[in-house]
Amino acid sequence: MKVLGVIVEYNPFHNGHLYHIKSSKELIHPDYTVAVMSGSFTQRGEPAIIDKFSRAEIAIHHGIDLVLELPFVYATQDAGGFARGAVGVLHRINVVSDIVFGSESADREFLIKTAEILHKQPWRYQEILHTKLKKGLSFPNARKEALLEYAKEIKLLDPDRIKNIERSNDILGVEYVRALFQHESNIEFHTIKRVGAEYNEREFKGNLSSATAIRKLIREGEWNLVREAVPEKSYEVIRREISEGRGPVFWEELDLAYMTRFRLMKREDFSKIHGFVEGLDIRFEREVRKSGSLMEFIERLKTKRFTFTRLRRMMLHAFFGLTKEFMKDVNQKGPQYARILAFNKRGRKLLKILKKKSEIPLISTPSLYKKILENSEMEIDSELYLKMFEMDTLSTDIHALLFKKDFQRSGERDFKEKVRFIHTDLS
Amino acid sequence: MKVLGVIVEYNPFHNGHLYHIKSSKELIHPDYTVAVMSGSFTQRGEPAIIDKFSRAEIAIHHGIDLVLELPFVYATQDAGGFARGAVGVLHRINVVSDIVFGSESADREFLIKTAEILHKQPWRYQEILHTKLKKGLSFPNARKEALLEYAKEIKLLDPDRIKNIERSNDILGVEYVRALFQHESNIEFHTIKRVGAEYNEREFKGNLSSATAIRKLIREGEWNLVREAVPEKSYEVIRREISEGRGPVFWEELDLAYMTRFRLMKREDFSKIHGFVEGLDIRFEREVRKSGSLMEFIERLKTKRFTFTRLRRMMLHAFFGLTKEFMKDVNQKGPQYARILAFNKRGRKLLKILKKKSEIPLISTPSLYKKILENSEMEIDSELYLKMFEMDTLSTDIHALLFKKDFQRSGERDFKEKVRFIHTDLS
Repeated sequence: MKVLGVIVEYNPFHNGHLYHIKSSKELIHPDYTVAVMSGSFTQRGEPAIIDKFSRAEIAIHHGIDLVLELPFVYATQDAGGFARGAVGVLHRINVVSDIVFGSESADREFLIKTAEILHKQPWRYQEILHTKLKKGLSFPNARKEALLEYAKEIKLLDPDRIKNIERSNDILGVEYVRALFQHESNIEFHTIKRVGAEYNEREFKGNLSSATAIRKLIREGEWNLVREAVPEKSYEVIRREISEGRGPVFWEELDLAYMTRFRLMKREDFSKIHGFVEGLDIRFEREVRKSGSLMEFIERLKTKRFTFTRLRRMMLHAFFGLTKEFMKDVNQKGPQYARILAFNKRGRKLLKILKKKSEIPLISTPSLYKKILENSEMEIDSELYLKMFEMDTLSTDIHALLFKKDFQRSGERDFKEKVRFIHTDLS
Repeated sequence: MKVLGVIVEYNPFHNGHLYHIKSSKELIHPDYTVAVMSGSFTQRGEPAIIDKFSRAEIAIHHGIDLVLELPFVYATQDAGGFARGAVGVLHRINVVSDIVFGSESADREFLIKTAEILHKQPWRYQEILHTKLKKGLSFPNARKEALLEYAKEIKLLDPDRIKNIERSNDILGVEYVRALFQHESNIEFHTIKRVGAEYNEREFKGNLSSATAIRKLIREGEWNLVREAVPEKSYEVIRREISEGRGPVFWEELDLAYMTRFRLMKREDFSKIHGFVEGLDIRFEREVRKSGSLMEFIERLKTKRFTFTRLRRMMLHAFFGLTKEFMKDVNQKGPQYARILAFNKRGRKLLKILKKKSEIPLISTPSLYKKILENSEMEIDSELYLKMFEMDTLSTDIHALLFKKDFQRSGERDFKEKVRFIHTDLS
């Protein structure tokens, strides 16, 4: 049995995503396709533009059979934590045979060899990395440079390929492979070359625009251009959600909530939060007072090393109070459940198999999340399971407060929204 | 030497306030007049419509010689805590000879006798109060009914006067007198009959409109009506502040900041906050999830006993994290400093006297607040002094985030704004 796994955000679902699903299926010819998808907040430290339920619904319309939620604590981490969580879910449900992800280099050997370096952390590599970081480079850049330098030193690959790799941006791909090592997973991985725009390209590039560009178009109300860039059903659901007042949701709307919260926090509070290293606690405490807006605040904090996106993730973590202690546990122990967001007929069949095979509890009725834990005989960490799941529901409750119409803003949506069962031609 | 003390919010300063100053001066013929005024937030649990510096400036223009800030921790409490703090400041600066306040009954004997009951808390009075509270009455109403019933029982006053008092709303007056007892103060108190609108009357009543009605007019941009209701100089300063982008500030703008914060708080967090009694922690945790807006939230919480204003104060305290433990200390130990906001020439002379006589440190240069403490030989509680003052500056930093123009929103205004020295005809 072939089960294809993909790792996605679909924020929102666009033509590039559809292309990725189709190409992956052509490559694997799977019996089932399962996606693990970010929930209410994304890896860029932002709230998703529309809610997770509708994004899961769109995914089912475009060839995914089952959508699982990537827990908030992983979905909002850097590439390493994100990959560890996402691969962890796919590994632990214990049915996925193949993972396919987009890659710029699509150089399988490179991905494996660099992932091995990251996994094993040879002493010489660490030394080079340290030098790069001291130069003030951001962590992803320092790591990339250190990897390449180390690769050259040990003659890991021939010089021409190294050159190609220098131009690419395969951090996430390397992290997926590394996470497979970490989980000692037997899942096969495959890459397909990315097409179209970079994921963070801001400009409209016609029918292969990036999610970032599409969110900008949505903000500007450029609906004709949005329509070009996303499949018809995605367009319909996005319009439906917005017309019903459940979006579009933008990070900028958190300005006052963030600024008031951060002015109320002290250095000691920041220092407990995941990712606050090297005096950032002092800088947060000081700069939030000097800044008149969230944008000014982030501009004041930004350095080569602490990029906009990284700071935005840290702010999200500070807002939600994700401590170093908690996140260490999260990252060491990995995902403790698989939350089901949507499926089609084929997904329902897969769920039957999952119920027998999964190594972590499946949550399809969130209101029963405590009962599911009590009845489970699996080896999971109860406390972590509860805290992790409560962060998912809490983040959805915060996300809902950003909806445009206040009658849509009530909380506990996780307990009210049913798992979406979608009839599709494919199923 | 006669020094008149008044206790005010001036949110904003209107004709009724001017009348009060003039009448008080006619009554006392003071050498100096000092006001203790709420800072960035008021007794109704709201941010002040314009900042404390400008409100102090207006006060000086209208006959006050020296404006001191009522610390945030007292300014935002119920009548009892508010009075204790305000009378405490006036008492501890050790020069005020007379306090004058508005009163509906203006019945001196009634005020003294009821304040004595509140101060001494006779057993029978407590018993009646308990019965009233059990009936679900709000604390102020239960207390009023209990006082009257007890007064009848012990034939404290003749029946006709009791009837008059039943119609009036002298809670704050009684609390001022009670606070004088508590502080064992020799300050004389005087009442003058209130004129014009009730302080919480929402409708425009011409040139004697309430502050509440005036704030509503400001929100609606009814500048011609505002002009009728406030003295010319008050009007000018309000317009100046708003045109420079420092206001008008309204509580409603805290909606998302409050709602996100409160959804992130758990029952255990609420239960630590000042004023959270009888399962309110559970109700806050539950209802904030059900509510789509701050107004809906407060409507869901409101009962006869927990009024809108009381809940709004509790929310403010929860937002700022004012714990039961801290507030107990605040109320037992009283104000630990007198912060100077503005003065005129006569006020400057008074300050010279104050420097010799005051029992608490005077803070005129806030950036030196730690040094002032170190150099002081007064018997004050250092830890409380620091925490109390830091709440003032913090609340000003939060208030500033509600300004209309973001370049005005930077924090640490307490350390940037100079004490306002105002030349007036009077000085």
